[in-house]
Amino acid sequence: MAEDGNLHIGNSNYNGEEEADPENNTMNQPLLKRHRTLSSTPLALVGTKVSHIESLDYEINENDLFKHDWRSRSKAQVFQYIFAKWTLACLVGLLTGLIATLINLAVENIAGYKLLAVGYYIAQDRYLTGLLIFTGANLGLTLVATILVVVFAPTAAGPGIPEIKAYLNGVDTPNMFGATTMIVKIVGSIGAVAAGLDLGKEGPLVHIGSCIASLLGQGGPDNHRIKWRWLRYFNNDRDRRDLITCGSASGVCAAFRSPVGGVLFALEEVATWWRSALLWRTFFSTAVVVVVLRAFIEICNSGKCGLFGKGGLIMFDVSHVEVRKGKIHKVLLSLSVSLFTSVCLYGLPFLAECKPCNPLIDEACPTNGRSGNFKQFNCPNGYYNDLATLFLTTNDDAVRNVFSSNTPNEFGMVSLWIYFGLYCILGLITFGIATPSGLFLPIILMGSAYGRMLGTVMGSYTKIDQGLYAVLGAASLMAGSMRMTVSLCVIFLELTNNLLLLPITMFVLLIAKTVGDSFNLSIYEIILHLKGLPFLEANPEPWMRNLTVGELVDAKPPVITLRGVEKVANIVDALRNTTHNAFPVLDGEDVDNGAGTELHGLILRAHLVKVLKKRWFLNEKRRTEEWEVREKFTPVELAEREDNFDDVAITSSEMQMYVDLHPLTNTTPYTVVQSMSVAKALVLFRSVGLRHLLVVPKIQASGMSPVIGILTRQDLRAYNILQAFPRLDKHKSRKLR
Amino acid sequence: MAEDGNLHIGNSNYNGEEEADPENNTMNQPLLKRHRTLSSTPLALVGTKVSHIESLDYEINENDLFKHDWRSRSKAQVFQYIFAKWTLACLVGLLTGLIATLINLAVENIAGYKLLAVGYYIAQDRYLTGLLIFTGANLGLTLVATILVVVFAPTAAGPGIPEIKAYLNGVDTPNMFGATTMIVKIVGSIGAVAAGLDLGKEGPLVHIGSCIASLLGQGGPDNHRIKWRWLRYFNNDRDRRDLITCGSASGVCAAFRSPVGGVLFALEEVATWWRSALLWRTFFSTAVVVVVLRAFIEICNSGKCGLFGKGGLIMFDVSHVEVRKGKIHKVLLSLSVSLFTSVCLYGLPFLAECKPCNPLIDEACPTNGRSGNFKQFNCPNGYYNDLATLFLTTNDDAVRNVFSSNTPNEFGMVSLWIYFGLYCILGLITFGIATPSGLFLPIILMGSAYGRMLGTVMGSYTKIDQGLYAVLGAASLMAGSMRMTVSLCVIFLELTNNLLLLPITMFVLLIAKTVGDSFNLSIYEIILHLKGLPFLEANPEPWMRNLTVGELVDAKPPVITLRGVEKVANIVDALRNTTHNAFPVLDGEDVDNGAGTELHGLILRAHLVKVLKKRWFLNEKRRTEEWEVREKFTPVELAEREDNFDDVAITSSEMQMYVDLHPLTNTTPYTVVQSMSVAKALVLFRSVGLRHLLVVPKIQASGMSPVIGILTRQDLRAYNILQAFPRLDKHKSRKLR
Repeated sequence: MAEDGNLHIGNSNYNGEEEADPENNTMNQPLLKRHRTLSSTPLALVGTKVSHIESLDYEINENDLFKHDWRSRSKAQVFQYIFAKWTLACLVGLLTGLIATLINLAVENIAGYKLLAVGYYIAQDRYLTGLLIFTGANLGLTLVATILVVVFAPTAAGPGIPEIKAYLNGVDTPNMFGATTMIVKIVGSIGAVAAGLDLGKEGPLVHIGSCIASLLGQGGPDNHRIKWRWLRYFNNDRDRRDLITCGSASGVCAAFRSPVGGVLFALEEVATWWRSALLWRTFFSTAVVVVVLRAFIEICNSGKCGLFGKGGLIMFDVSHVEVRKGKIHKVLLSLSVSLFTSVCLYGLPFLAECKPCNPLIDEACPTNGRSGNFKQFNCPNGYYNDLATLFLTTNDDAVRNVFSSNTPNEFGMVSLWIYFGLYCILGLITFGIATPSGLFLPIILMGSAYGRMLGTVMGSYTKIDQGLYAVLGAASLMAGSMRMTVSLCVIFLELTNNLLLLPITMFVLLIAKTVGDSFNLSIYEIILHLKGLPFLEANPEPWMRNLTVGELVDAKPPVITLRGVEKVANIVDALRNTTHNAFPVLDGEDVDNGAGTELHGLILRAHLVKVLKKRWFLNEKRRTEEWEVREKFTPVELAEREDNFDDVAITSSEMQMYVDLHPLTNTTPYTVVQSMSVAKALVLFRSVGLRHLLVVPKIQASGMSPVIGILTRQDLRAYNILQAFPRLDKHKSRKLR
Repeated sequence: MAEDGNLHIGNSNYNGEEEADPENNTMNQPLLKRHRTLSSTPLALVGTKVSHIESLDYEINENDLFKHDWRSRSKAQVFQYIFAKWTLACLVGLLTGLIATLINLAVENIAGYKLLAVGYYIAQDRYLTGLLIFTGANLGLTLVATILVVVFAPTAAGPGIPEIKAYLNGVDTPNMFGATTMIVKIVGSIGAVAAGLDLGKEGPLVHIGSCIASLLGQGGPDNHRIKWRWLRYFNNDRDRRDLITCGSASGVCAAFRSPVGGVLFALEEVATWWRSALLWRTFFSTAVVVVVLRAFIEICNSGKCGLFGKGGLIMFDVSHVEVRKGKIHKVLLSLSVSLFTSVCLYGLPFLAECKPCNPLIDEACPTNGRSGNFKQFNCPNGYYNDLATLFLTTNDDAVRNVFSSNTPNEFGMVSLWIYFGLYCILGLITFGIATPSGLFLPIILMGSAYGRMLGTVMGSYTKIDQGLYAVLGAASLMAGSMRMTVSLCVIFLELTNNLLLLPITMFVLLIAKTVGDSFNLSIYEIILHLKGLPFLEANPEPWMRNLTVGELVDAKPPVITLRGVEKVANIVDALRNTTHNAFPVLDGEDVDNGAGTELHGLILRAHLVKVLKKRWFLNEKRRTEEWEVREKFTPVELAEREDNFDDVAITSSEMQMYVDLHPLTNTTPYTVVQSMSVAKALVLFRSVGLRHLLVVPKIQASGMSPVIGILTRQDLRAYNILQAFPRLDKHKSRKLR
């Protein structure tokens, strides 16, 4: 038993018992079914489109050229880099603040004129004309939003937060952060929110913030990039990750005017990797956002922004998996949701009784304008319609009204039930449509409804304000669905501007999250799963401790390696026959037998393609000098990520030439020994932020390849492993934390 | 050149130039001076005592027994573990809140009676008696605090925050979290703060919170541990780390009544590793703290707490490196600082002019009691002494007075200069004394002084309140010295209860931190360095990219390995002749030649000692069955960390027997290949939280040892590497971020 060298999981196999338990298995009894292989489809749902997804390279690619480039950077350049980093953080904040203001202004004005017109006809008792105008305007706005999304940018549908979360975890989804997506998202958000649909602008703002960050980092849209010299430092996934984190924090800050909340949201909900320096930089961005917002609010308060009210309280958002249908189908779906919403919002208030105005309250009552807490609607003077107060207004104002304090019994129980029921239904049917949509607002609307109901019931027993109940209801539903705690607490703190609510908010959040956690995952994680984005969880599954990376590698096709000085034909073969993004490079005396004795490193596909495109071929088999490489390639070129070489025609004589891969090889890839458990390999993979993890053999012997396999994100996902090793599934649910 | 296999850093050596630049060096020209070795002294300053320090084992030790233990855990036990985790988090919050209340009450009452007595004599113009009572009481209180620290718990001196920071980074300092330390810290804090020294109770509260967490996790003080079954799950460094993080957050929360601030402080300033689950658990702890504090404040406001005023505003703390002197010396130093402080606080107010009370202000003026914003002191009725208002009160009240708003020109310019100057001097001389001492408060006192001065100067030009200037001054000095941003912002937000201050506070903090960063490290990092604690920084030095771990290993003595089935004599030798904490275990056919062909894993010193103590020896050289091991060792025993085996007498016949190390070996240690750069190895080491990192060879060949070295925290510290490779020093200052 001692000789086979595989006895690395001591267990009861010696007793000949317990063989049925897969957790007791060792390498002596491979779990592997040879006909099964670890496979994965690199496809996922991005927005409403099925896309090919890729992993990101966060690892520093330490090859000769990189090292030379780094060494040759002067102090001035290092300073330039730091300066650029902070300038970009500032610009992200500035632009996010400006765009958020723009969206707010547009929504408030469009919805405002719409509501004014409707109010005008209602005051004249011309209810049908009112309905037609209301419905017509909403349909038109929905149409604009949907057409834009369906035709120009399918990735702009939904909130975008799950995709950002996946990006920061290391999964790239194409067209997610482009200029078209951003513009469609801005205009689409304005349309969808102004149309009174049950969705918010908060999620889209987070996405817009991330788009701004990404575009700034790469110097503009894909086709018109500015080639500023200092921007080249940001042409890598690490710096882009930091920028997008800043962008998402700025978006939340712009949505809720909550700078600390924005930072915490990015930390708690979105980001996978975090470091102290980033805390400080995101905080800078959100500080800029809040200053911009405050400046515009000052201007608007002096009446220069048209119908701009107090808009700006905003929420969260998610799209469903109602897709893969035709474009017309998507547009029709949006329009019917819009129609249903409009009819309900307009028609249901007729069911409510008119309530007399309370003379003890200072606020105007009844009102018939754009906003106001006591809408007259169909009631006589001196009376107001409580449902109209909640329905015939913008969603932001509806939330403000239901949160309003010192107005006990403003809303009747029946009205609150209708309000709650309607938003449950609208929430369910609205998430799937092809417009930018936020999940925060629908959840706040729903949560505030049951909170206010509870407040009305408890009204006779306690002196606690009913508005506070509504706030706590909204907080509890958000914590229960999104599982945010600290960030949500700070956002509510900054929204309500009342520190005394802090302890009670904290406890409501704690209870809601605990209850939610005992049932299912958070809504974002469910969406990530539904969309098929290969998100790597923070904690490995317990059964991963009983599987070694060696077993995983055995279940994969053999690894394809290249030699340090390789024939062009072999490189072309490797590129054509696989889609692998990196190949191990081996060196040593036995190298011609196919198995080198020494691991030189890892070469990226993009760099191999670059070599072919540049035709950097050698006539004889030799190592090159460093100046030869530096003459041919610049670090900027190597940072570009292109892997299409269909247009490269290589002659058959060129096929017999050689390439020296050494200078382009990353000589310091991360490795694990064959006997490492999958659990610990996953911890390494995720903590360090890898794309490839090389597996090296445990036994030291000649003639053996120094690399036995290569693991990627897909290989380490629990779901994929269970497909190949179904017996492990038994204890799937046994989770330590 | 291609054959030597070492050409892994392509560079200009081919050109025969640039040989003088160490950054261009490769393994062909070893930087290594053979007579130099990587060495380190595992000694550091803990409190006021020089101690032997150790690293912590955060890595999961996957050996057979551990795996069996984990597999045998039932669902009920897993639930027990989760339940215990949350119960402990709750208890940490509860106890920290209670102890913070206790300290507050004690300080307020002791200082209150002292100040009342002094006020009584001053009112009678018996100034000398007042001075004697004031000085005498302060000396007595200082004596108590110092004696306790010097005699019983030298580790209780200072704030303790740097040591906590080091602990969470993976450095264990002995006696830091014991029961004695905690009790001395509590009593000592009360004494030192009540004595009116220029120090705060905030740092000590953070330390006390961590002590509570650590003691709860291990079931009580070292000698009287409760052996509850479920506590055994917490007998490892990982869970202890999480608990101590909760404890430190609770401490900050208790100090500032700022729950979110506490969480952010732990995240930003103290913790090295962080995960989402921890955010949520620390938040739970701080929520409990804030409820406890609020409950007691309610009780105290109804007058049941003696002289308890509004005490509770608290700050930060650090001790200096004035040590290694005798005990008497330390006591005398404390007493003379106390004497100087008392005389200054009592005498300087005589220099101030009496100012007439402003009849427009509601507050009582003048007062002569324990607290109050306008102290009469030596002035006639209707007048107050502004310096006495700042000096003859508790530090907390002094801060409250200098922050007071709507009291323009309360303090004269001369008085503010005296106040500023005195606290600069006191701050410098107080930090070194052997009492528990916080750094927050002295910094707030100093910062608020110059803030208020600026406010007085600007008073004629702006309408901004002078109290706000004082708050911003304090915030700026804290950000400039401690480099906290987000957490400080939230703490000030929660302290001042004014959200409108947020944007301006943010900008003051950003500027202060930026200015500070351009000059030196934060005060905690400086203290960590001075104390010699081997803290691992988040970012590797740039020159580490040009050094491989292979070169580092070459500079160390050869690694000592054990065989899978090893002779007792060899084990005893290894333990006696080294202080290493772990040894690689090798297996394979060549194993008797000293070099095995296969890496089985890593065995801990503690487990080897356990084997010797239990005399688990075999007569012949064979592998054991799993039941044999399980009969002999329990997982609880293996979790204990003892490495003293002086009392184990092994006979010479036993010396010739064998031990099967396989079942106790961690089969999944993390490894790096020889050619890995030190920079990337350091990233791995810190991200995953390792204690040992094995270096495996790059070349695959028979007869070669599968482990060429082992790296620890000390080997990866920049300072130690530069000692062994001085030529790298040239570009030391060139830092990318």
